[in-house]
Formats: sequence, structure tokens, C-alpha cells
Amino acid sequence: MSSFTLEASDGAARAGLLQTAHGEIRTPAFMPVGTKATVKSLLPVEVRALGADVMLCNTYHLHLRPGEDLIEELGGLHAFSGWDRPILTDSGGFQVFSLRDTLLEVDDDGATFRSVYDGRAERLTPEGVAEIQRRLGSDIAMCLDICPPADATAREHEEAVRRTELWAARQVAAPRAPGQLRFGIAQGGTDRALRSRSIAGVVELPFDGYALGGLAVGESRKEMLETVAWAAPELPADRPRYFMGLGDAEGILEVIARGIDMFDCVLPTRTARTGSALTARGRLNLRNARFARDPRPLEEGCGCPACAEFSRAYVRHLVNQQELLGLRLLTLHNLWFTLQLTAGAREAITRGAFDAYRAEALATLATGPEEEAWQR
Amino acid sequence: MSSFTLEASDGAARAGLLQTAHGEIRTPAFMPVGTKATVKSLLPVEVRALGADVMLCNTYHLHLRPGEDLIEELGGLHAFSGWDRPILTDSGGFQVFSLRDTLLEVDDDGATFRSVYDGRAERLTPEGVAEIQRRLGSDIAMCLDICPPADATAREHEEAVRRTELWAARQVAAPRAPGQLRFGIAQGGTDRALRSRSIAGVVELPFDGYALGGLAVGESRKEMLETVAWAAPELPADRPRYFMGLGDAEGILEVIARGIDMFDCVLPTRTARTGSALTARGRLNLRNARFARDPRPLEEGCGCPACAEFSRAYVRHLVNQQELLGLRLLTLHNLWFTLQLTAGAREAITRGAFDAYRAEALATLATGPEEEAWQR
Repeated sequence: MSSFTLEASDGAARAGLLQTAHGEIRTPAFMPVGTKATVKSLLPVEVRALGADVMLCNTYHLHLRPGEDLIEELGGLHAFSGWDRPILTDSGGFQVFSLRDTLLEVDDDGATFRSVYDGRAERLTPEGVAEIQRRLGSDIAMCLDICPPADATAREHEEAVRRTELWAARQVAAPRAPGQLRFGIAQGGTDRALRSRSIAGVVELPFDGYALGGLAVGESRKEMLETVAWAAPELPADRPRYFMGLGDAEGILEVIARGIDMFDCVLPTRTARTGSALTARGRLNLRNARFARDPRPLEEGCGCPACAEFSRAYVRHLVNQQELLGLRLLTLHNLWFTLQLTAGAREAITRGAFDAYRAEALATLATGPEEEAWQR
Repeated sequence: MSSFTLEASDGAARAGLLQTAHGEIRTPAFMPVGTKATVKSLLPVEVRALGADVMLCNTYHLHLRPGEDLIEELGGLHAFSGWDRPILTDSGGFQVFSLRDTLLEVDDDGATFRSVYDGRAERLTPEGVAEIQRRLGSDIAMCLDICPPADATAREHEEAVRRTELWAARQVAAPRAPGQLRFGIAQGGTDRALRSRSIAGVVELPFDGYALGGLAVGESRKEMLETVAWAAPELPADRPRYFMGLGDAEGILEVIARGIDMFDCVLPTRTARTGSALTARGRLNLRNARFARDPRPLEEGCGCPACAEFSRAYVRHLVNQQELLGLRLLTLHNLWFTLQLTAGAREAITRGAFDAYRAEALATLATGPEEEAWQR
């Protein structure tokens, strides 16, 4: 029986529920990134209060520091981090292949790379990644895949697809934690024949969900969306579909419209750390002098903890003074914005009104933020 | 009528209540430092939940960035920072005279220094400091004083006392915010005759409270405590007595024992940012490998938000990975520890049991933290 229930469809857009060992995930779902078992600067209780159902952690980083043996000894990733709800662990494939200087060797068995922490040679194999994730005790374990950049050669894309499928077949057979779900990944860039072959291969394997990897890695937004439009429907309708690495407002709305159920990105949290706020009308760079005396919240009408209490002027002061509270307030706001946008999409799909929701959100985004300085 | 009510005495130790325009301060009171209108990494609601009655902000830093005109326009320091309880503003004298490279000129009128932000020459005078604090709208405004280091010459100490008194007489006559209290400061190092003369001068002026400045600036702990023992009783019994710049457990207990009511220090928050926890048995450096697999909270039995949920092992992981949540958890814990110690002292004074409280706390501190690694 599938752990995924499709609740409503609206065109290609879907609303569903994914059951995991630590509770349910309402889809479409944005997953805040907590690479090292912490969503930067926030307590688990705050992340939950923002509306997040699931946190994404990174197998590569946690394997290297502090190590899965330590985390297992401390009771697993949930007990260790204090986040008692669903956790998805990325496989580390993206890190191994995107930190190109550190990749030492890749063959059909696995990949050897130099640790970014201490330079030691480390090896990841499908069985090894499954074992790390089993010991971490995540709720959803991703397969080890090979994710080439958009400008990789056809040969490189071919090899990535071949090895990703080879590895998926091995990882799906490896032991997993009790109740742990496992997601396969399709590669193939934007090449229709290759990506379709990758999808056909992975959906043969009994995964609990399927991901499109290797998109939003340098190709144009237009190419990316065209690919999703035909690729998502090739994934099984009764399993969740995960777009790996997407978190901007437009992108979220457009991939939901094409049948994607889950997505993640560091964009909201990273943007916060650069001093910018995400709003319905686009980004506000709080370093801009026009916010110096602006008494308004980051976004008018926003229900986040930052907007409930603090002015743009204060957040700007904190950002300029490199005060930690500044990036914490922006992190709260940006995650709230992204999670609310996604929750709104889910609600609109349930009502059969997703097209209007998307059109209005995109139109608002296109107006851009107000440019004038605050005047009393 | 004094804004200060003495509720109980126990030997020289005192418990009292100081009424301010934004609520009351229970004394003895530790004041968390929020130099730039933020206690680093924390929301005002968190600082309050730790038990703090009053936040200390810095006139020097806020004058330079973002400036009192901006803060006044945004509704004053309380509205700007979101901290709606008492705020004490330090005068900036300590910064002007401790950042020695930046001091350009000091004469009987005031002091000229180079801004640490942009190198521009800036001038502080008693009237100017009063005006900045009036516009900031703090609840307690400190006088501009001259604070020499412990190893200053007798001549320098003499001059500091003379100018501090001169400036106090001018500042006490300057306009202040409605309901704003004003505290005078005695200097004079550990020289009994000089300090007594400074105290005699300042208590002639109608301040709402009096501070001992220029202690804990390089002299030995023994000399400091001997000075407080005779100097505190020379301050009026019906006004709060503030020891400027003290925040370690032993120091807090010892100055309370000698009649001090208020104190502040960056120690709890700064120690957090270096990765250490304050406990009843001393400091724990979380970077120490013996905590790597330690499932216990920072301090057993502690009621702080960090100890309620997280292990030493997790905090150590966060500290080692320079994750912001690590210093936030340590900041929460260290402020809680310091505020609880102070609240316990107040309660003991009320019961007439302060000597026993102090003796037990000092004995526990002397045992030192356990040194063995965690063993299952």
C-alpha cells in the first residue's frame, strides 16, 4: 500500500498527503533545508510554527560531521536535532558531484571524494548511503545519484543516467530503517529521450516516491519548465513527485502547475543571510538606504513572527550591524513566505482554483517591490 | 519620592524594587547587555522569558549607528527594539575611554573621539549625552564619566574624578525624557580617599541611583571586593547601587553581599559566542572532545530552553560547525544561569538566608565541572 494519498487534482496540479514514520507531509510541500541537522539560526519549534511539515538534512555533511555513528548513539536524527517530525535525507550525491574539485574517482561501484572538512578520501556507494541513512533514521532516504551540470556533454549525461539507475537498483535492495521511505531519482538533463529512459528505469523499481534530479542546475527556466511539463506525468501518479532544489516563488508555482508535489531549496534561508526579504512583490534588500526610516514590517499583512513586531528600519539596523537577530528575523520571514505560498497553492488546488491563485501570485510578483522611500 | 523601595536586608545584602516608566526592576538585578538594541541572537520575548527585567543598551554605539534621530522617529528605543520593559542606557564614557586609540581629545567640556564606524571625529559632552538619551527614551540614563584603567597614574585617577563630578553636575541639570531616571557615577579606582571624595561629590547631586564605575578594570578581585565593601555603604541606602561591568557568578554573589543592587556584563553572552556554557560548577567548553557523545543537557536540572531539549553532543556539533543555533542555545543558557543565580540571591535575602545561599553556590563553583567523558 502506498504511503501517499492523492486528495485533489486541479489540472496537472495535485494536493496530497504523505504518511511517514514521524507524521504526515501535506503536499505540495516546501522542505526547509537543515543541512547539518539545524535550519540555520532557528529552533525546531519555530520551524514547525512556520508551517513546515518536513526538514531536509544532508547525508554527505552529517556522515562527515558528526558522523552517523554518533547520531545513532544519540538516538537518531530526530532525537539529536530535536525535530520530531518527518525528515528527508538527501543522499549526498549532489555534494559529491557539485563540489567538483573534491571528486577523486567515480566508477560503477561508487564515488570517491575528498572530505571538505579534513581532506581525507571518503567513498560513497549506494549500499553505504543506504546504511548511513538507516542509522540516521530519516523518514525519507534519497538514492545516491549522479547530477551533472546542465552544460555537461551528452556522454556525461548518458553515464549519469546509467550509473544512477545501476545504483538505484542496488540501494533499493539495501536494508533501511523501520518505516523509512525511499525515493528514486531520474536524471537526463533536459534531453527528452534520455530523461524518459531514466524515468522508465527508475519507476521499474519499488520506490515510495520519485524525484527529478539534475534540473535547475544551469539550464534556462524555460527549458526546465518544459522538461517538468512532460517528465512529471511520466512519474507514477500514485507516488509523490519531488523536484530537487527549487525554492523561488515563481518556480514553486510553475512546478506545482506541472504536477510536482515536493521541493526544497536553500534560497529562503540563504537570501535571509544576505540581508534580503522575500515578499509577494519580490525581494527587498534591507541594506538599501530607502528602508532606513521605514516603520512598516518587511511585508504588510504578513503573519510571521518578524513582521508581527519589527520594522524594516530595525531589521535594516540589525543587518547593517551584522547582528544575528537580523538574519534570524529574515530567515523566519522568508521561510514563512515560502511555506505560506505553498500552503496557499495546496488550498487553491483543493478548491479547484489553482490557476487563478497562480496567475494572481505571478501578476503580483511581476509588479515588483515599491521603490520609493518611506514618507511620513 | 524615591523610585526605589528597599524590601529586605540581610547583612549588607539588599532586595528591592526600582520603579521605572516601563515597569519595575527586581533587585539584585543582572542586566543583559543589548549594546546595539538587541541582546545578540535573541528576541525580546525570549530575554524576558529568561527572567530579565531590564536590558542595557549603549549610548555610544546607538548614537553612531543608527543614530538617536532615527530611533526617536521610530518611536524610541522600546518601540524600535521591541523590548517594552525597562532599558538602561550606558553613557558611552566607557567606550570613549577604553577604545584608547580612538580618543582624540578630552578637556573639561567633553571628549572628542574617532568613530569606530567611519573614523569621523565625534564629540560627547554631558549635555550631549543627556540629549541623546532623552531622545532614545531610555528608562535609566547614565552620566558621562571618565573611566581610567586600574593601572592609570594617581594624576589620571584624580583628573577622572574631577571631570566626572564636573560633568555629573551639568548632566543632572539637562533635560531628560518624561519619567527617565538618571544615575550618577563615582570613580577613583581602589584609592580610598579618592573614591570616597568622588562618592561624596556625586551623592550631593539629586540622582535616582548611584554607580561604582572604574572597578573590574584590571585590579585584582581582592582589591575590587575590598573597595566595594567600604564604598557601597557610602552610597545612599535609599537609592539603587549599580556596579558597572560585572557578570561572573562569584563576582555577582560577592558584590551582592557587599550591598550592590544592579550589575551588567557581556560575559554570559560573549562566553556563549566562544562556545562555552556557564554552570553552577564552572564553565564547560563545548569544543572539548569529551562532550562529543554526551547526551546530558548543558547543566542537569537546568530549566532553560536549551537544556529542556538539547544535548551537549548536539550543542557541541553546532558549535563546531559554526551553526548559529549553537551560540543561540548557549546564550539562552548562560543568561538563564546568570539571571537565576541573581533571582536566587534575591529570594535568599528575603528569607534572611543569603549567607548560606552564597556559601553553597561558591562551594559548588569551587568543585569545578566533572572532567570525565560520558560513559554509557
